[in-house]
Amino acid sequence: MIKRNKQVAKLKSGYLFPEINKRKQNFLINNPEAKLISLGIGDTTQPISSTVVDAFVGISKNLGTPEGYIGYGPEQGIELLRQKIANTFYKNLVNSEEIFVSDGAKCDIGRLQVLFGGEVSVAIQDPAYPVYIDGSIIQGIDKIHMMSCSFENGFFPDLNVLDRVDLIYICSPNNPTGAACTYSQLEKLVAYAKKNHSIIIFDAAYAGYIKGPNLPKTIYEIKGAEEVAIEIGSFSKLAGFTGIRLGWMVVPEALKYENGFSVKEDWNRIATTLFNGASIIAQYGGLAVLEEKGLKEVEKLVDFYLENARFLKTTLEQMGYEVFGGINAPYLWVHFPGKNSWEVFQELLEKAHIITTPGSGFGPAGEGFVRFSAYGKREDILLAIERLKKIKI
Amino acid sequence: MIKRNKQVAKLKSGYLFPEINKRKQNFLINNPEAKLISLGIGDTTQPISSTVVDAFVGISKNLGTPEGYIGYGPEQGIELLRQKIANTFYKNLVNSEEIFVSDGAKCDIGRLQVLFGGEVSVAIQDPAYPVYIDGSIIQGIDKIHMMSCSFENGFFPDLNVLDRVDLIYICSPNNPTGAACTYSQLEKLVAYAKKNHSIIIFDAAYAGYIKGPNLPKTIYEIKGAEEVAIEIGSFSKLAGFTGIRLGWMVVPEALKYENGFSVKEDWNRIATTLFNGASIIAQYGGLAVLEEKGLKEVEKLVDFYLENARFLKTTLEQMGYEVFGGINAPYLWVHFPGKNSWEVFQELLEKAHIITTPGSGFGPAGEGFVRFSAYGKREDILLAIERLKKIKI
Repeated sequence: MIKRNKQVAKLKSGYLFPEINKRKQNFLINNPEAKLISLGIGDTTQPISSTVVDAFVGISKNLGTPEGYIGYGPEQGIELLRQKIANTFYKNLVNSEEIFVSDGAKCDIGRLQVLFGGEVSVAIQDPAYPVYIDGSIIQGIDKIHMMSCSFENGFFPDLNVLDRVDLIYICSPNNPTGAACTYSQLEKLVAYAKKNHSIIIFDAAYAGYIKGPNLPKTIYEIKGAEEVAIEIGSFSKLAGFTGIRLGWMVVPEALKYENGFSVKEDWNRIATTLFNGASIIAQYGGLAVLEEKGLKEVEKLVDFYLENARFLKTTLEQMGYEVFGGINAPYLWVHFPGKNSWEVFQELLEKAHIITTPGSGFGPAGEGFVRFSAYGKREDILLAIERLKKIKI
Repeated sequence: MIKRNKQVAKLKSGYLFPEINKRKQNFLINNPEAKLISLGIGDTTQPISSTVVDAFVGISKNLGTPEGYIGYGPEQGIELLRQKIANTFYKNLVNSEEIFVSDGAKCDIGRLQVLFGGEVSVAIQDPAYPVYIDGSIIQGIDKIHMMSCSFENGFFPDLNVLDRVDLIYICSPNNPTGAACTYSQLEKLVAYAKKNHSIIIFDAAYAGYIKGPNLPKTIYEIKGAEEVAIEIGSFSKLAGFTGIRLGWMVVPEALKYENGFSVKEDWNRIATTLFNGASIIAQYGGLAVLEEKGLKEVEKLVDFYLENARFLKTTLEQMGYEVFGGINAPYLWVHFPGKNSWEVFQELLEKAHIITTPGSGFGPAGEGFVRFSAYGKREDILLAIERLKKIKI
């Protein structure tokens, strides 16, 4: 009989969010009247902007006419969208041929892992978005180095102590720590990759939240990065597209394997073999986001969530906690020294009826931290603040 | 430096469609006035029906309001859509918990191959949709058995000569041969899988085209199939959703690995780790397809393409060719005995300015055949017929 894939068997069962849900349900059984506020999962809550809705409606109506109907689009995405992404987010540091439109960052990471296969070594930040590790395990990778990221190193790994690896995952602005990489950090990262002939998987899904003037918004601002880095982008948190599904990946022409073969060419083969393009409706929405009016609307949206983050940060700091992130990122990474993440989670649930995410769920270096997401509705954020002010953890 | 994934390196470069395109371009350089008709790639051409367009518009407008906004949906799909799929296509032979909504059959096949990994043996029909083989090679599978399907065996493999395999891919109605499996064939298939403890990957993406009264519309009509089969379904060709991206997979609860572990549970882990759900707009469109009015509209759409197929079939038969498929399938598989598929392709291009797909592009057993797609606009189909009547291959 067919055997279970031993790599899949190695995965921990999706522990974090099911466990949170279990604790939430238990709490509600004993406290059926409680009005819980979720500052847990990073899910958008604000409506899609009107320019984008108009684009969804427009393409939908066109699809209902003989002249306006479109079947399969190019697997790599509509050419105009690829151009607009290259212009808007990369100021033409990369070109449209290097942009691959997708149904989102998570799916792109999964396909990227298929691209590189199971015989590579990888380095992953600790704490990190769980898909980097899980997807690597599924591919059969046994050489996974965890790079500790704590307040002691500014949540950026110490590359001096990292042995050579093939792939290095860096997420900036970071989920969960909220740290946005500086120019100097990314220069070190690119230098590491050049020296070691590694490829950087640069997850910039939250790049839209970088407002600081002296922070790079893409890794391609660093000289030579196009020879060593793939960048992942997303409309999810930028434009409220979590349910719409639209993202992209940049695979530069200059990125080569040991034998000189183009990584981009292999990626194109993978993307056209195992993927069939993002929904055409989502892509037309993406085009509208990148119009002048659309860009202004999404800037407002991002500013709204960043204001939520500021409100939460101020409150938590006034309460005496050390709060990281929440300035150029939608996540606050709050330190509870000497405490266990799950204990803090439980106290926040019981005392303030607030759901957060325990830091240890993102990796061992997350112990002692709790992640607050700023993606709530304004009234929920304000109510959460009111409740927080009344408690002591 | 990082090495190229040797499995990806083993893939033939996407030979078929690029080669077709090259020949087409060469022809157009020498014949710039020629009006080519494409009966090649299976891409839909008819507009989305009004009920579905209304659903796209409705959900789009809702997403623009505070009350109607939705972020992430469940990765497995909207519960109501899962229920409607179970009711409509499976008459509750399977339940909604066993339905996993996706962004389409091609992507599902890719993730399925990740699920089973590289250490399984597989059997694939020859000729076949190229993704079965390419995806298996990418996973590192070296035990790939090709099952010859020709007019001699009714385009269904002779399972008596097939050694035991872990996975057996069957596509019905078949792309490219247009053959739809009979009850007796599927009973043999299920018996083979039960005897050999194999899992059937049953690709039913074209099931909506089965009109014959004595043909199974799903493998789960066969007793015991739920213990040995995964089925893949799609809205692409049923409702013109090729660009919208919506499909589903059925992974029955009763399907187990050697050690008794649930395949469905592992699939759920893969789907939630490497995928983030189909676009919410596409899913609301799917819900509309499955309303009474929507179902009538898509039936008309399918009937339209089947009428195209009948017109082409009649013409080609009158010309003296043996034509398979085109009755319960949108593809015609036309036999040109003793001829080379590419030669026939070239003759059709030069003499009738018609693009087809050479059968050998789907596997060695496709040699001597050419695939005609019935997905054209009516005026193109009629013009193609007019031209075909004037030539001799």
